[in-house]
Amino acid sequence: MTNPTAAMLVIGDEILSGRTRDANMHHLAGQLTEAGIDLTEVRIVSDDAPAIIAAVQALSASYSHVFTSGGIGPTHDDITADCIAAAFDTPIDIRDDARALLQAHYDRSGQELNTARLRMARIPDGATMIDNPVSTAPGFTLGNVHVMAGVPSVFQAMIASVLPTLSGGAPLLSRSLRVVRGEGDIAGPLGEFAARHPNLSVGSYPFQKDGIYGANLVVRGQDAAALDAAMAELGTVFA
Amino acid sequence: MTNPTAAMLVIGDEILSGRTRDANMHHLAGQLTEAGIDLTEVRIVSDDAPAIIAAVQALSASYSHVFTSGGIGPTHDDITADCIAAAFDTPIDIRDDARALLQAHYDRSGQELNTARLRMARIPDGATMIDNPVSTAPGFTLGNVHVMAGVPSVFQAMIASVLPTLSGGAPLLSRSLRVVRGEGDIAGPLGEFAARHPNLSVGSYPFQKDGIYGANLVVRGQDAAALDAAMAELGTVFA
Repeated sequence: MTNPTAAMLVIGDEILSGRTRDANMHHLAGQLTEAGIDLTEVRIVSDDAPAIIAAVQALSASYSHVFTSGGIGPTHDDITADCIAAAFDTPIDIRDDARALLQAHYDRSGQELNTARLRMARIPDGATMIDNPVSTAPGFTLGNVHVMAGVPSVFQAMIASVLPTLSGGAPLLSRSLRVVRGEGDIAGPLGEFAARHPNLSVGSYPFQKDGIYGANLVVRGQDAAALDAAMAELGTVFA
Repeated sequence: MTNPTAAMLVIGDEILSGRTRDANMHHLAGQLTEAGIDLTEVRIVSDDAPAIIAAVQALSASYSHVFTSGGIGPTHDDITADCIAAAFDTPIDIRDDARALLQAHYDRSGQELNTARLRMARIPDGATMIDNPVSTAPGFTLGNVHVMAGVPSVFQAMIASVLPTLSGGAPLLSRSLRVVRGEGDIAGPLGEFAARHPNLSVGSYPFQKDGIYGANLVVRGQDAAALDAAMAELGTVFA
């Protein structure tokens, strides 16, 4: 009855340099929680082939699913598809059905399907394409690795394409209680509460704003009734 | 002449569940870039001791520095300090100077230094404390691992305490050019530009907004004059 697990691999120098904030991780985390798939680890690596290959192999071996974002466009720094193929020791080349999708797309828009754009039809042997209703160039699934674009609108569309094909577990529900007391005062009774509810996950996320110290207490579990009962109890503990 | 490398380890269920957006990674990335330390990998793991220990050991062995955020507060789910000690196979206990700092802090505020708060004085043997001017409870450095709180204001204060003690390399400078053309049209000439400048890092970060396709072209390097000359050339390529 345990849920499938997942990892995310974000590929992109621009996040590691501090130039861009990642937006895809937060989106995927929320979607997976709803789907009953436990996001257990995220890694962010640069546009560096050995780093990407090593991360794909490690995560693919450890989790039910791996979701990648970034590096599948037409430019020279887009090396993700080749790295996935290398990670699985699988050949990669331009695939006819992917080329046909791109040809039709660029014919409609009156643009040329040049050498650079054709790179986006490179799909590892044995992969399944992931539909991209936003800008056509497909993602793909190889083994348990789902490879998606980094542009947030495209990433989100691809997640919407691929998630319904995966079987999830029970969605993880959460409830929270905001307590305006220092965590040091909360910790004792909260630890006892957590010990009384071994089937629930109990977290304390402190905040400190305008001189006010407090914490958001978050309780997570798969059984809504048990969760509600526990929250009622937590309310009396911190009344 | 290569810069020191760094990894970040974010510890926190709340980010993996999609409840919270991480804010510390973006801050650290910008600070390290300014300091001439290359942030090369980020991992996010849950509040799970084996996962934290394995990540600390792997990152500590691979990079010059590791920065962690989260899990050093007083509540039952704060297990980072013990995990760092375990990762280095080092004893951990309440340390007198850390206890004295906390005692003085809580005496001033008229609060009790109870058992939960005393957990924040647990520091692995051989560690150096990191000053916390915001809320007193210290971070610490053990080996090449710098352990900091997850609350953003405290994380930022601790980064400001620890960064000046580290020796960096040449800051990585970046310039960008926004080009309102599809990446497929940009890719060919951009790849040739990148090949002409092997000492610069050249990235293309596509955007797609309100039906307009384009890319931010980002060029990075350590030599300001070379960078400016290259950007002038790039401007003529995409004029």
